[in-house]
Amino acid sequence: MNTPDTTLMKTRGYAAHDKHSPLVPFTFERREPGPRDVQIEILYCGICHSDLHQVRDDWGGSLYPMVPGHEIVGRVTRVGAEVKKLKVDDLAGVGCMVDSCRHCPACHEGLEQYCAEGPTWTYNARERGREQLTFGGYSERIVVEERFVVKIPPSLDLKTAAPLLCAGITTYSPLRHWKVGKGQRVGVIGLGGLGHMGVKFARAFGAEVVMITTSPAKARDAARLGAHEVLISRDSAAMAKQAGRFHFLLNTIPNPHDVNPYLALLKRDATMVLVGLLTAFEPSLQGGSLISGRRSLAGSVIGGLPETQEMIDFCAAHKIGSDVEMIPIQSVNEAYERLLKNDVRYRFVIDMASLKEAAQP
Amino acid sequence: MNTPDTTLMKTRGYAAHDKHSPLVPFTFERREPGPRDVQIEILYCGICHSDLHQVRDDWGGSLYPMVPGHEIVGRVTRVGAEVKKLKVDDLAGVGCMVDSCRHCPACHEGLEQYCAEGPTWTYNARERGREQLTFGGYSERIVVEERFVVKIPPSLDLKTAAPLLCAGITTYSPLRHWKVGKGQRVGVIGLGGLGHMGVKFARAFGAEVVMITTSPAKARDAARLGAHEVLISRDSAAMAKQAGRFHFLLNTIPNPHDVNPYLALLKRDATMVLVGLLTAFEPSLQGGSLISGRRSLAGSVIGGLPETQEMIDFCAAHKIGSDVEMIPIQSVNEAYERLLKNDVRYRFVIDMASLKEAAQP
Repeated sequence: MNTPDTTLMKTRGYAAHDKHSPLVPFTFERREPGPRDVQIEILYCGICHSDLHQVRDDWGGSLYPMVPGHEIVGRVTRVGAEVKKLKVDDLAGVGCMVDSCRHCPACHEGLEQYCAEGPTWTYNARERGREQLTFGGYSERIVVEERFVVKIPPSLDLKTAAPLLCAGITTYSPLRHWKVGKGQRVGVIGLGGLGHMGVKFARAFGAEVVMITTSPAKARDAARLGAHEVLISRDSAAMAKQAGRFHFLLNTIPNPHDVNPYLALLKRDATMVLVGLLTAFEPSLQGGSLISGRRSLAGSVIGGLPETQEMIDFCAAHKIGSDVEMIPIQSVNEAYERLLKNDVRYRFVIDMASLKEAAQP
Repeated sequence: MNTPDTTLMKTRGYAAHDKHSPLVPFTFERREPGPRDVQIEILYCGICHSDLHQVRDDWGGSLYPMVPGHEIVGRVTRVGAEVKKLKVDDLAGVGCMVDSCRHCPACHEGLEQYCAEGPTWTYNARERGREQLTFGGYSERIVVEERFVVKIPPSLDLKTAAPLLCAGITTYSPLRHWKVGKGQRVGVIGLGGLGHMGVKFARAFGAEVVMITTSPAKARDAARLGAHEVLISRDSAAMAKQAGRFHFLLNTIPNPHDVNPYLALLKRDATMVLVGLLTAFEPSLQGGSLISGRRSLAGSVIGGLPETQEMIDFCAAHKIGSDVEMIPIQSVNEAYERLLKNDVRYRFVIDMASLKEAAQP
C-alpha cells in the first residue's frame, strides 16, 4: 500500500480546454493516495447542469483544462493506512467537494458546503493550499480524502446512484432542513435531474407532491416519479387557481426565470428554496411577492458529508435512484447539447468503461 | 348617540387630485358611526413614505381624490351602541387598515394584513363592498369599526405615538416574528421613519444593534436611538469586514437598491426581512447571495390588530415613541419634498390643529 506506482499517476479523462471548445480526451496526473486518502476506480459519473455552466464559463472564473464531473461512483482500489470507513472493493461515491478548512463552525457541524473559507470543489478549483487544479469524475480514477467519500451500500443500483451525489443531496438537504413531510402540499419546480429527485424525495417524506413544469411531455412521467399532481407553469389560469396553496416550493430551475409567479403559489409564511439559480434574477424579483404573505425565498447548496451519507443510506433503504440515460464518454458533447434543450430523462450518466474501450483499438 | 348629525358628515382634510399635483384643502363626507363604529377626532397624523408613493402613483392604480394618512391618533368623540373596548374621550389610533373579510384563516388569527381577500386600506381603497373611497388621516376626523381601532394608554406621548401605527408595527412585527432578541447581532438597514423604530425595538428586545445607513450625518444619532454600532453601507471595506456576522437584518429601504451586499452580511441560515420595498429589485438579486450560506430573504407587511395593540402597550411600558418633526398641514407638500431627500429625523407628523386654525381667519 502507498508504495509509489507511477503507472497509476497517469489518469485518462475528458477535458475542456477553453469555454468555446468541445470536451476532448485528456491525460493528467493524480496524486498517490496519502494515509487518509481513498483511491476509487470510477465506474459511472453523472452529468450535472453545472458541468455545462462551468465548462462554458457561465459563472466566470473557470479554470482550464477542466475535467468536469462531481457525481462519481466507483470501486475502492486503494486506501491509505489511516483510512477507517472504507476498504478495498467497497463501493464509494464522491460529490461536489473534496476538501474544506475543517476548523470553521460549518465544518465542525458537518456542513462543509458552507465552510467559512469555502470548500474545495471536485473540479474547476485548486487543491487546498496548492496551485494544482482539481479534476473531476469524467476520468478513470480519483483520489480523495476519506472524509469526502461516502460509502455506497451494495443494495443500491450503482448506475442510478451516481446522480445522488449532487442532484440527490441538493434536493434531499433542503427538503429535510425545511422539514417537508406529511400534511404538506409541496411543489417541485423544474423537471430535470434535480427536479425529478426532488419529486421522489418529497413523496418518500410523505408530502402531497405537485410537479411544476413547463413541459407537458414530461408531465406524463409525473405519476411514475411519485407526483400526485402536475401543474403546467405556462398555464396562467392553472397557476392562478393554485395561488396560496403550497407549504413549500423547491425551485430547481438552473437558468434565469421569473420567480414571482411561483412565489404567488406559496401560503402565508411559506418558503421557496432555490437550488439551481446562482446568477441574476431576470426578470426582477418584486418585493411585493415576498411582503404579501410574509413569504421567504431561500437558497441551499448541496449538503454536508454526514447528510450525504444519510441520503445515500435513505435511498438504499427506500430503493430510490435517479432515472438515468447511460452514455459512453464519447457522446458527452452531444449530451451537453441535449441538456441545453432539456432533452433528458432525467440524468445523463457516463459509463466510464467506455473510456477504457476507446483506448483499446 | 348615533342620531344623525349632518354637520359631522362634512369633513375637512387635504387631498391629492392626481399624481402630478400638490395636496390641497378638500372637503368630503364621512359616514355616521354605526353600532360598532368609533368616531375619532384626529389630533396627529404621521407622514409615511408610502403616502408619497401612493399620491404619486408609484405603485400604479392610485384612486383620486386621495386623502392620505394611516398613522392616525386622536380622541374618541362618539361610539356606536355595541362598541366595547373604547369610550368617548379615550385616546385611540388607526393604522393602515380599516376593514378585512373577517372570515379567512388570517383574519381568524388576527393577521388581518394577510386577509385572503385583501384588507381594506385606510386610504387609496374602496370601502368593503362599496364604491365609496376610503379617506385617510390628513383630515379632522375618521369613523372606523372598533376592531380596527387600537386603544392608546394615556401614558404614551401622543405626538410621538402617531408613527407607531405604521412605522412602529411594520418594524415591531417582523422583529417579533423572527424572534429577535438577546445574544443576536441585528442590523437595521435604512435610517428613516421605519429604520429608527427598528433600532429602538431591536434594542428594547435585547439584541446587539447595528444601524446600517448610507448617511454619516444620521449615523451621529445612532447611540441616542439605541444602536450599539454604525455601519456605513457605502464603505465597502467596512461592509466586507462585517460579512457573515448578522443573525438578522431588517431592511427598511423603500426604493430599489442592491440587496446583494446586505445579504452577504448574514450568517449561515439567517434572514433579511424587507418591509419597505414593494417593487422590482434593481439591480437584480443574485441567486448565489441566498444559496451561499442557506440565507433567506423574506417580506413582512405591518401587523395585525392584536399585535398592533400589543406594540402600543409595549411602547407605553417602555416609553418608546417615534422621533418626530411636527408640521402644520399647510407644509405637507414641502415635507414630501424633504422626504424624497431623506431629510427628516425621523418622521413628519401633522399637527391636525393646523387644519382648524386655517379655517378660522
